[in-house]
Amino acid sequence: MKVLIIGGVAGGASCAARLRRLDEDAHIVLLEEGGHVSYANCGLPYYIGGVIEEEEELLLQTPESFYRRFRVDVRVRNKAEKISPETKTVTVRNLEDGSCYEESYDKLVLSPGAAPFRIPVNPKAASRVFTLRRVEDCRKIRDMVTAGKYRSAVVIGGGFIGLEVCENLQKEGIDVSVVEAMPQILPPFDEEIAEILHGCLRDHGTALYLNSKMEDISPSETGGCVVSLSGGKQLFCDFVVMAVGVRPDTALCREAGMELTDRGSILTDENFLTSLPDVYAIGDAVITKNRLTGMPGMTALAGPANKQGRLVADILCGRKTIPYPGVLGSFVIRLFDRTAAATGINERTCRQAGLDYAKIYLLPYDHATYYPGAEQMVMKVLFEKKTGKLLGMQCTGLSGVEKRVDVFAAALHFGGTVQDLEELDLCYAPPYSSAKDPVNFAGFVGDNLMQGISRFWYWDQMPERGGENEVLLDVRTPEEYEDGHLEGAVNIPVDELRERISELPKDKEIYLYCQVGIRGNVAQRILTQKGYSAWNLSGGYGLMSRIGKA
Amino acid sequence: MKVLIIGGVAGGASCAARLRRLDEDAHIVLLEEGGHVSYANCGLPYYIGGVIEEEEELLLQTPESFYRRFRVDVRVRNKAEKISPETKTVTVRNLEDGSCYEESYDKLVLSPGAAPFRIPVNPKAASRVFTLRRVEDCRKIRDMVTAGKYRSAVVIGGGFIGLEVCENLQKEGIDVSVVEAMPQILPPFDEEIAEILHGCLRDHGTALYLNSKMEDISPSETGGCVVSLSGGKQLFCDFVVMAVGVRPDTALCREAGMELTDRGSILTDENFLTSLPDVYAIGDAVITKNRLTGMPGMTALAGPANKQGRLVADILCGRKTIPYPGVLGSFVIRLFDRTAAATGINERTCRQAGLDYAKIYLLPYDHATYYPGAEQMVMKVLFEKKTGKLLGMQCTGLSGVEKRVDVFAAALHFGGTVQDLEELDLCYAPPYSSAKDPVNFAGFVGDNLMQGISRFWYWDQMPERGGENEVLLDVRTPEEYEDGHLEGAVNIPVDELRERISELPKDKEIYLYCQVGIRGNVAQRILTQKGYSAWNLSGGYGLMSRIGKA
Repeated sequence: MKVLIIGGVAGGASCAARLRRLDEDAHIVLLEEGGHVSYANCGLPYYIGGVIEEEEELLLQTPESFYRRFRVDVRVRNKAEKISPETKTVTVRNLEDGSCYEESYDKLVLSPGAAPFRIPVNPKAASRVFTLRRVEDCRKIRDMVTAGKYRSAVVIGGGFIGLEVCENLQKEGIDVSVVEAMPQILPPFDEEIAEILHGCLRDHGTALYLNSKMEDISPSETGGCVVSLSGGKQLFCDFVVMAVGVRPDTALCREAGMELTDRGSILTDENFLTSLPDVYAIGDAVITKNRLTGMPGMTALAGPANKQGRLVADILCGRKTIPYPGVLGSFVIRLFDRTAAATGINERTCRQAGLDYAKIYLLPYDHATYYPGAEQMVMKVLFEKKTGKLLGMQCTGLSGVEKRVDVFAAALHFGGTVQDLEELDLCYAPPYSSAKDPVNFAGFVGDNLMQGISRFWYWDQMPERGGENEVLLDVRTPEEYEDGHLEGAVNIPVDELRERISELPKDKEIYLYCQVGIRGNVAQRILTQKGYSAWNLSGGYGLMSRIGKA
Repeated sequence: MKVLIIGGVAGGASCAARLRRLDEDAHIVLLEEGGHVSYANCGLPYYIGGVIEEEEELLLQTPESFYRRFRVDVRVRNKAEKISPETKTVTVRNLEDGSCYEESYDKLVLSPGAAPFRIPVNPKAASRVFTLRRVEDCRKIRDMVTAGKYRSAVVIGGGFIGLEVCENLQKEGIDVSVVEAMPQILPPFDEEIAEILHGCLRDHGTALYLNSKMEDISPSETGGCVVSLSGGKQLFCDFVVMAVGVRPDTALCREAGMELTDRGSILTDENFLTSLPDVYAIGDAVITKNRLTGMPGMTALAGPANKQGRLVADILCGRKTIPYPGVLGSFVIRLFDRTAAATGINERTCRQAGLDYAKIYLLPYDHATYYPGAEQMVMKVLFEKKTGKLLGMQCTGLSGVEKRVDVFAAALHFGGTVQDLEELDLCYAPPYSSAKDPVNFAGFVGDNLMQGISRFWYWDQMPERGGENEVLLDVRTPEEYEDGHLEGAVNIPVDELRERISELPKDKEIYLYCQVGIRGNVAQRILTQKGYSAWNLSGGYGLMSRIGKA
């Protein structure tokens, strides 16, 4: 069996190594357009910031080491230019000498990845505008940083790569502006969670331009760039990093007559077989099914790409028949001291998919508050209203965030419910968690909602001020109330509520809140049991103040 | 409904608070023998070490605050002395004035907890021998620490409490010896994992006496203690902390005719109802079912106790009918800079339960190795050989340990298999994990074993030295081999194995190893495919050296 693999990074390299372990006699050729194979593409932003100090650390394998270990014929700077499915050959250009040759295959595995999208700019400024895909791109930006004379940069695009580059440039003392065309950064997060991250960036000195389309980049008089934004604003900087998303690198697939989506992603069956016989495709260039909605989408994440590479090797060797389950899209990003992570689908997707969902917000601590260093996080949990089936979770905080997201991702994998979250037997000691872990707590709150024990109102449903049918009630202490409260709220501390309950009108809706929702729950339960129609603010004043609503 | 609760810490306090939230009109009385209610018992060791600085921080609620918030009639220093099921009353002694009174109940909830077992010692030394259960006990030990004149302590018992006390005493500059009657500390771990922790303790200056029974404690001439061990060894110290396990605090249950185990644990049905009508029991004093084996056992962990308290309130209010699923026994402990955690059952229990299990060891890093600060952990995974159903996982390392154990605990909750681990879509960025998370990796390795792709040998199966039918093969580099190798091993680096394969005899079993098992896997695959009978050492030389076998 001769297997030709196009693309030698996450998916392609994983596939080649696994293939060799399964079949010592296979003939495996791996073509990579760039100068490196199996490099740490997720590490590139950290090389820009000098966190990863040596370029060599990014190179997990060299063509030589890969050959020695796996007897894979790795050819870097060799670009596949044409697939001929009828003859089962690929036309390859050697980028070193420009020569072309034909390479045959029994099985072809495409792992071409996705290329950064480039918005056209004034060509005179082009030498100061960078994108990030390969080690070579990274080195160019690193050179700008280490030159020592450049002080400011504009990052176009508030996605994962843009923000990781932003953090790393700032770490090196460069002033950074982030320009994002949408109203929020990181679209996998819902807007209110993104708003917390906006605050994090601003707190760390990032100039953030949301709802701002980059119109042009032209050279400035001082040799730098002028970035013109929609609305007329101009940003002056020494250089620009453009990170406005990626497009599947599939021109040669289209020419070969392969079925693609309108945006160029490769369509495959559940075993990664494309529309061309004996041609498989994996990684960022492939459309994958969302495990929860079943809806197809583009996933540019290293985890799925690596696992798909391994799976396709199993499939080629007849080892696997289980159809690929699809992706949850779990991800995590570090923003300065903060972690933000999520799994499953967000509220926007729930709405688009027409799901009858419920949501809750929690502000738990990463570990027991009596143990030093406890950090508060914000969690948003989505689940099906009727069944309790989990749909997604978003979380941000300084510590313990990715642990809860991973536990949640495991629950999603198994089709778990909020009731399952209640029962999870997670490990506990004071430095690590609480006896009721935040994930358990999400289960308690979700189950309370499903059972009708809890009734919530939400940050985007502020009661009408002075409304004739509504009372806004703050059940925190007078001291907390004085420090800041929602406009129009009256204050009755939860511990006085039973005595002072007659101060509240029974014929109005009571919208109450505390700091995070726990005392509010007690208050709502008291009022509900005494015949009031009461609603507790999910996430409390703590959420409101973090998202700029208080 | 009048609910009387005996025991005001984890389970009892959780139950009282939940009850009130569900039923504003219930009459709730909570009796606590100690001086505090709802205190942070898991935090007590950290108060001894001054990590938690103020005693007040341990007191999550006071009787007054609990009354204000929940209208629960909390009576500390009130000891239940007798249960009279026929009259549905409890005889209570007020420990302040010695008076007695009767308290009636409609429903009685017992959350008495477990008391430290005390091995009898010379009464003259008793004032220097401490146990740890309540805040009051903790203060006495803290006073010894802050007195400034005591320099050495012996901790009897290498369980959770003993070791947490050990760490905290050492943190305060006290020399600590730990005496353990068994061959290992922390019996929930298997011996080889415990051996890694023995090394950790010794590296941190703990004098560890295993297989050492404490025979007596007598006063020393200098006013301290002499601890006499089996075998004649004597340890001189200023004071002793005895932490040799706990016994259910159920004397009054026995007198009331309640069904108990021989060791005094309370037997309940799946809804926590004891053998006495309208009497429920929860927490450390109760026998719970192991979720995996179905076998009953004693669980002294805060997580299950807290959750059971909440569940019983639901049951009393008719909110829950789902039988309690039992415990996995997930736990985590910090030992100095190290974390050790586990979930599910260990190998000893697998054997006792007669399970047909398989095991694998992994030594993965907590995050991508090209990103600074990656720390290696040791993972042991157990699963059913035929079905792949997960049975348990033990893990230790400096970082990222409890996350993997919690993900595993979630997988165990859902009855997951090693194949599920492969598919888990966990979040990844270089500071947090690898594109193939250690948990995914465990799935890959486990699946390889199940499919017969991988064949393993284990640390306790050293091949016969110079055996006629066996070859011990080190496939690491010559430099690694020179730095240390297993006795009798020949060295052929994996990258040279294909060329030098003829050096190996085809008629012998090849027991090979590398550093952690990854290169060994490649080597075993090469050899297997070329007709050799080869076995790869699970966990590699790295495991052997960590457990003192290399």
